Amino acid sequence: NPAAEFEFAHPADGAELLESLPLEEQVEVITTLEPEDAAEFIAEMERHDRARLMKDLPPDYAADLLGQMSPDDAADILDDLDDAHQQRLLQRVEQEEALEIETLLTFDPDTAGGVMNTEVTVLDQNLTADQAIQLIRSAAEESEIPYYAYIVDEADHLIGVLSLRNLMLSRPGQRLRDVLGKQHLVYSYFDVDKEEVAQKLTHYNFLALPIVDREMRLLGVVTHDDVIDIIHEEASEDMLGMVGAGQDETTDTPWLQSVRMRLPWLLVNVLNSAVSAWVVHLFEGTITQMAILAALMPIVANQAGNSGQQSLAVIIRQLAMEAFDRKRAWLAVAREARIGLLNGIIVGILVMVGVSLLTHKIELAFVMSLALGVDMCIGNVAGASIPVVFKELGRDPAQASSIFLTALTDSAGFLTFLGLSSLLLF
Amino acid sequence: NPAAEFEFAHPADGAELLESLPLEEQVEVITTLEPEDAAEFIAEMERHDRARLMKDLPPDYAADLLGQMSPDDAADILDDLDDAHQQRLLQRVEQEEALEIETLLTFDPDTAGGVMNTEVTVLDQNLTADQAIQLIRSAAEESEIPYYAYIVDEADHLIGVLSLRNLMLSRPGQRLRDVLGKQHLVYSYFDVDKEEVAQKLTHYNFLALPIVDREMRLLGVVTHDDVIDIIHEEASEDMLGMVGAGQDETTDTPWLQSVRMRLPWLLVNVLNSAVSAWVVHLFEGTITQMAILAALMPIVANQAGNSGQQSLAVIIRQLAMEAFDRKRAWLAVAREARIGLLNGIIVGILVMVGVSLLTHKIELAFVMSLALGVDMCIGNVAGASIPVVFKELGRDPAQASSIFLTALTDSAGFLTFLGLSSLLLF
Ligand SMILES: [Mg+2]
Ligand SMILES: [Mg+2]
Ligand SMILES: [Mg+2]
Ligand SMILES: [Mg+2]
Ligand SMILES: [Mg+2]
Ligand SMILES: [Mg+2]
Ligand SMILES: [Mg+2]
Ligand SMILES: [Mg+2]
Ligand SMILES: [Mg+2]
Ligand SMILES: [Mg+2]
Ligand SMILES: [Mg+2]
Ligand SMILES: [Mg+2]
Ligand SMILES: [Mg+2]
Repeated sequence: NPAAEFEFAHPADGAELLESLPLEEQVEVITTLEPEDAAEFIAEMERHDRARLMKDLPPDYAADLLGQMSPDDAADILDDLDDAHQQRLLQRVEQEEALEIETLLTFDPDTAGGVMNTEVTVLDQNLTADQAIQLIRSAAEESEIPYYAYIVDEADHLIGVLSLRNLMLSRPGQRLRDVLGKQHLVYSYFDVDKEEVAQKLTHYNFLALPIVDREMRLLGVVTHDDVIDIIHEEASEDMLGMVGAGQDETTDTPWLQSVRMRLPWLLVNVLNSAVSAWVVHLFEGTITQMAILAALMPIVANQAGNSGQQSLAVIIRQLAMEAFDRKRAWLAVAREARIGLLNGIIVGILVMVGVSLLTHKIELAFVMSLALGVDMCIGNVAGASIPVVFKELGRDPAQASSIFLTALTDSAGFLTFLGLSSLLLF
Repeated sequence: NPAAEFEFAHPADGAELLESLPLEEQVEVITTLEPEDAAEFIAEMERHDRARLMKDLPPDYAADLLGQMSPDDAADILDDLDDAHQQRLLQRVEQEEALEIETLLTFDPDTAGGVMNTEVTVLDQNLTADQAIQLIRSAAEESEIPYYAYIVDEADHLIGVLSLRNLMLSRPGQRLRDVLGKQHLVYSYFDVDKEEVAQKLTHYNFLALPIVDREMRLLGVVTHDDVIDIIHEEASEDMLGMVGAGQDETTDTPWLQSVRMRLPWLLVNVLNSAVSAWVVHLFEGTITQMAILAALMPIVANQAGNSGQQSLAVIIRQLAMEAFDRKRAWLAVAREARIGLLNGIIVGILVMVGVSLLTHKIELAFVMSLALGVDMCIGNVAGASIPVVFKELGRDPAQASSIFLTALTDSAGFLTFLGLSSLLLF
């Protein structure tokens, strides 16, 4: 019986076990399990594996599983299926649940609405503290104990948040609106980028953050475990985006899909390098007279590219971890410029000594170290500014940033080195 | 009164407000506030700002604040001060608290022990469920409601974890050891890398993970908010380490410290580039005869470097998010090789067409596209393997990986392009 080892497994472990099986066995195990358990395992599976499995299950059973999940998980799964498949399954889900899932599907998956879940404890402000505790207690038989209870007024507007501890420490007869007192309510709108939600929850160390519409009606909550997933995803997005890979690629992405996602940026990179090749082309005469320039010029470009990538990395991480603050961002650019200048001077001097000793050409060594120092400064300023400028333009700060950076450091490096060489060495 | 706007601020907001003030005003505000409030603000401040402030406070007051904090926060703050300062403050903290802080200071800050906190609800296995709830209730007046209660036997060994819900749903007179039943206990040892703790908590969506010694005695817990900080730190470490910046650099790091941390890797990078310069140097004769090779060769190297960095990014993120699995890792390398091959063929063909049209030299275009395709495959295989090999060697998978990668793709690109050119074009 293949389902035996799944019976007592934590859903996260069961999901991993499932992923390691071939598709036919996945189907066999899932259809043998109790639908509630099967739904929990599938909700924890990796998205590509999960989509493949859902397509292979009998539609009625697949729809049954969707109905057993929390609606946000069901919506996430359907998001990865094509429209025809989505409709085929949704038609088979019970109407009330299907409606809730469809509502969740209307939110952009990169926004607060796209990651929130809708299982929330909502309490009327006129309840008393002991009534509230009674309600939570009886609900706990069915579901988890909520981290927070959300307090609403007559028109369902969110007016405050109370923890279980807040409720337990208040006078039994006290009304919730009085328990709230003067509270600084923290929330996010449904249409902000999910990264902002993660930054806010991280900042306050909360367990969950309420998500509201523009009229302050509570739509759902984003919880700590969702935020952990968001932070992982955003870190991947930044690192992958920087070098022009697909921002949601993982090692589980079908490889042809990865080819398709990376190719456009690789072609942009060819065009960018063609510009720096053009710069070198202008100095072919100089190179013919002194071929060692061709050997040394990649050192200049490479070094400035590396130094600039260091700045890039620091700034991208700042933007990932903190809410954007224009002043702090430009101060950070200034800091990178200082670092580039000093590192440029130090590396420049060392390279001057090295090249002098190896080639016995002091003027050449001087020109190279000067070009190196200048290009490293350019690299750091550009590496630091690119994400900030992209951010100010409303673009993703990381995407293809490394590609544009190295295009610049290559061209600038070749131009300064070959230009200064042709001016000063002949 | 400068402290007025701090009075009702959430500690995280108060900390940010403090950071925006000059040091003298920070001292003024902190010494005006109630010590409990001041301690909360300081615990939330950024580490460089916080260390500077602690050094500037009167030692007696600073020690008083340390005593008010949770011991793990106090230890983290002292970790950033020099030994003399540490001792000066610790001497002034009450003995019992000082002892606990000193114990925490003995753990490596990168391990589970270095990030855990010691405020844990420990219950004896012989208590009944209603006794347990009673205990938690009365403790809630003083502190937070715990996410989990940790159940120990007579010898203080951890034998299980119960949530508040588990307790509330059990029969009042049932003993905790019976409530536990057959439980799959999840924990980490105190000396594992904090990244492993984060991966485990992420995998199970837990709120906290117990940390034990080799005898299974409970030492503390790592909570969801600590894990969020760990994940942010690890993502920064990877992105910064990859390009040889300081792994714990932020935009708040003093800039001279950044210079010091980046310089060694920049020098390694110069030496690496010197190797590829040497390769070009071998072909100076060829370049003198055909200077356009010098213009085209950076395109080959640059493109392979970029493609390899895409593989690097995907693998580093896999290693960051999942527990290491040798088989999965090498399968991922094979996947990157396939992607490199196909992208290499496609980009190679396009570049062949482009260079033919621009230069009217079909053989040159052929040689370049061949070198490009080969180097892109090398780039992807190297980019994917470097982190896995580093990991197998027990080294940080990300650190300086991009520097070694581009050293390889530069040398290999110059060698194949210039080598094939000198063989086939003359
Ligand atoms: Mg997996
Ligand atoms: Mg969703
Ligand atoms: Mg969810
Ligand atoms: Mg935090
Ligand atoms: Mg982002
Ligand atoms: Mg994003
Ligand atoms: Mg700050
Ligand atoms: Mg802590
Ligand atoms: Mg610590
Ligand atoms: Mg999770
Ligand atoms: Mg803490
Ligand atoms: Mg790491
Ligand atoms: Mg680490």
